[in-house]
Amino acid sequence: MAVAGAAIAASVAVSTVSAQSPAERSIQYRQGVMKAQGWHTGNMAAQVKGDKPYNKDDFLRSATFLSQLSHMAWDGFGPGTEAGAPTKAKPEIWKEMDKFKAVQTRLQTETAKLAQVAATGDMGQIKGQFGETGKVCANCHDTYRTK
Amino acid sequence: MAVAGAAIAASVAVSTVSAQSPAERSIQYRQGVMKAQGWHTGNMAAQVKGDKPYNKDDFLRSATFLSQLSHMAWDGFGPGTEAGAPTKAKPEIWKEMDKFKAVQTRLQTETAKLAQVAATGDMGQIKGQFGETGKVCANCHDTYRTK
Repeated sequence: MAVAGAAIAASVAVSTVSAQSPAERSIQYRQGVMKAQGWHTGNMAAQVKGDKPYNKDDFLRSATFLSQLSHMAWDGFGPGTEAGAPTKAKPEIWKEMDKFKAVQTRLQTETAKLAQVAATGDMGQIKGQFGETGKVCANCHDTYRTK
Repeated sequence: MAVAGAAIAASVAVSTVSAQSPAERSIQYRQGVMKAQGWHTGNMAAQVKGDKPYNKDDFLRSATFLSQLSHMAWDGFGPGTEAGAPTKAKPEIWKEMDKFKAVQTRLQTETAKLAQVAATGDMGQIKGQFGETGKVCANCHDTYRTK
């Protein structure tokens, strides 16, 4: 049964990727994670700006998910994934991977702090830390993403 | 500074979504999460099948990410998101949301177990639980996703 189940699971995974190159899969993976990050950032931004009523639990949920997601996208920037599907990632990423990894760590640090601050429900602190997190997003996009 | 930072962050979020309808954003969000789930499932499947050497830390990492991701996609299936962008999601989802939510809970339960089992490094247990997780993926895709 275990083997049969594993075969099912493998076919589930493979069925969606069989026609794709490794680079295309990597690019779509990292874009998927970035899309999810953008969604939760947008949800928090709406509450910080007052476009949506602030809800502590909802905000904390998005902050927690963003913190978790901040560890995920980077597997999709492996060697040979500069091209292979439409991508806005600049070649600089692969030329200065040490710097790119330092930015990843910054994002993980700031989003972890945001989740901590979100748990307090203090909008003053939240706005400050959301701003710090947004700067990391903006700096990385300005440096490593084409317009 | 906090307000300026928040403004930056908001613009980061908004810049990627301004031309999109709420339904399109939701559909792309849930597809992004599903893509990320598929990536980590594929990574584990390759190790279960022996197509890639088993590495305990790497497998555990994917199992942990999959468990975290299993909580995320569902926000993207809100009211009015049946259409608005290319999607394979069947209308049945919105007609039987209680059943759809029960499947979400099953996925969360089985992936949490998979992360626990992955921490043991026992491939016999891992294969069994990976199979159980794969069944949830397959059942949900068969029921709620078009081919």
